[in-house]
Amino acid sequence: MKALVFDRILHLDHGYPEPDIRPGWAIIQVTLAGICRTDIELTRGYMDFKGVLGHEFVGVVTECDNLSLIGQRVVGEINAGCGQCDWCRRGLERHCPNRLVLGISKLDGCFADFCTLPMANLYAVPDAISDTRAVFVEPVSAAFEIFEQMTINESDRCIVLGDGKMGILCAWALATASTDVTLIGHHPHKLAAAQWRGIRTETSIENVEPGADVVVEATGRANGIAEALKLCKPRGTLVLKSTTADDAPLNLAPLVVNEVTMIGSRCGRFKLGLHALMTYDFPLEHLIKGRYPLDEAEAAIAHATRPEALKMLIDV
Amino acid sequence: MKALVFDRILHLDHGYPEPDIRPGWAIIQVTLAGICRTDIELTRGYMDFKGVLGHEFVGVVTECDNLSLIGQRVVGEINAGCGQCDWCRRGLERHCPNRLVLGISKLDGCFADFCTLPMANLYAVPDAISDTRAVFVEPVSAAFEIFEQMTINESDRCIVLGDGKMGILCAWALATASTDVTLIGHHPHKLAAAQWRGIRTETSIENVEPGADVVVEATGRANGIAEALKLCKPRGTLVLKSTTADDAPLNLAPLVVNEVTMIGSRCGRFKLGLHALMTYDFPLEHLIKGRYPLDEAEAAIAHATRPEALKMLIDV
Repeated sequence: MKALVFDRILHLDHGYPEPDIRPGWAIIQVTLAGICRTDIELTRGYMDFKGVLGHEFVGVVTECDNLSLIGQRVVGEINAGCGQCDWCRRGLERHCPNRLVLGISKLDGCFADFCTLPMANLYAVPDAISDTRAVFVEPVSAAFEIFEQMTINESDRCIVLGDGKMGILCAWALATASTDVTLIGHHPHKLAAAQWRGIRTETSIENVEPGADVVVEATGRANGIAEALKLCKPRGTLVLKSTTADDAPLNLAPLVVNEVTMIGSRCGRFKLGLHALMTYDFPLEHLIKGRYPLDEAEAAIAHATRPEALKMLIDV
Repeated sequence: MKALVFDRILHLDHGYPEPDIRPGWAIIQVTLAGICRTDIELTRGYMDFKGVLGHEFVGVVTECDNLSLIGQRVVGEINAGCGQCDWCRRGLERHCPNRLVLGISKLDGCFADFCTLPMANLYAVPDAISDTRAVFVEPVSAAFEIFEQMTINESDRCIVLGDGKMGILCAWALATASTDVTLIGHHPHKLAAAQWRGIRTETSIENVEPGADVVVEATGRANGIAEALKLCKPRGTLVLKSTTADDAPLNLAPLVVNEVTMIGSRCGRFKLGLHALMTYDFPLEHLIKGRYPLDEAEAAIAHATRPEALKMLIDV
């Protein structure tokens, strides 16, 4: 099959082996995939990953033990836990120490004709959600993960740092709960794409009153944390969404002095993401800045690394 | 009066002006003071502080509007809020943006014959608590601040990183709630001094099973956070107690991936600290490694910077 492979170099492989079927797992023919910032980080050495990239997809099940699933249009949670440990038993397979992660750790990803995941990870996509919206379930779920970790009140003043995809999705998620959300980024066209439900946008933190109840750091830059700390009120909450391969010099004394709570936040449950896509009219189409066939996946990745890029899709 | 002053250089001043009395404030004649790691950091540039150092003390009130307080043996909370803002109104003057902080920010400290604080900051010391124990109220309250910020369950596995004063006091505080506390440090004699209520001690993180529910970072080293993250279980809590003037290269990707909650934790309420000193037989005397007269305060500070030092006291 065709697959976009990273093994120190990034290349399109036309003869990559199709995934084998495992007990309890399904083979999915990928229809449409999305490029995430994490994919770019992986090509820079994050997680030491080697294999097929990609973890955001919508596709159709072609093979599995459960015949009713075959032909079903699905999206899939990306963490495959061992199924045996305490984490898996508590439904937190995304923290299983032995987990495989689609296109991120020990499991080939979805920038390919086929990928494979446990049947339990798959969610049928309602007809009302098109492929181009369904491919956003993974990052939308990651944004809604914030609600699994803390309570956002209607009057909470919320600031999101970073106008990339994750920043915009987090601003939209917060705007479903709070009436006071500000998104700060350096790219006027991205801030324009983020307009929804009265979200305020600013191009500089200098223009924003500090003392926010909740600050979400989604800059993708390691030094975003220092800026986020400046904006957060004492005893406030800083949600950290950026993962990066880089170290950055950081002094966390302000976190101690102001007794800020910093919450690391990652993948979310697809049930919440699908529900959000059914419930809210997020202007996802504003985020799509390019769409490439799998044959041109290397060009899609190159485009996705440009500062002005938002979401790039790959048609398989 | 005599005072240990830092203004780019550290020196004992024999003719420093006595503090003026302000409305609602008290003058305290200092009896005994303790040197904290923060004092050392201040002499290295932390907070840009200039003035009389020192914020841990026990003393006797010599002047104030409330005559019943005069002659009273007291300890004092170190943050003097403006009394007007939301923080002060909520009893959180230690987060008031305009606060003065004894010997740390905009207010002369207690390594001097006299210091001054608002009367509302003062707590009478019960006769059952000697001066040498009362001088620990400030750091003991800081250790117990953890309980104001989170719940510690009896079965929670707790690890404290750092065998300095704050690390040891945090281990003791945690051991009042949990039966499973491990203290990790590099100094066998400090670990020996920390023995209390079955606290386990280790000299290397390699000997400690990771996956703790709660990790307290109290190394005073900026790179302690990376080690603390390694020991913390996914969805666990990391309490950050160290403040340092130094930046350190840090990658917080593990905090995001493991969805760890990091809580900055600082000063605590003296009510809790005094209650703890009345309730528990912490072996505080094991922490006192030197006692100097104020005339030799510079030598006391020099001694306190040595790696083997624990608590140094200054008799005024």
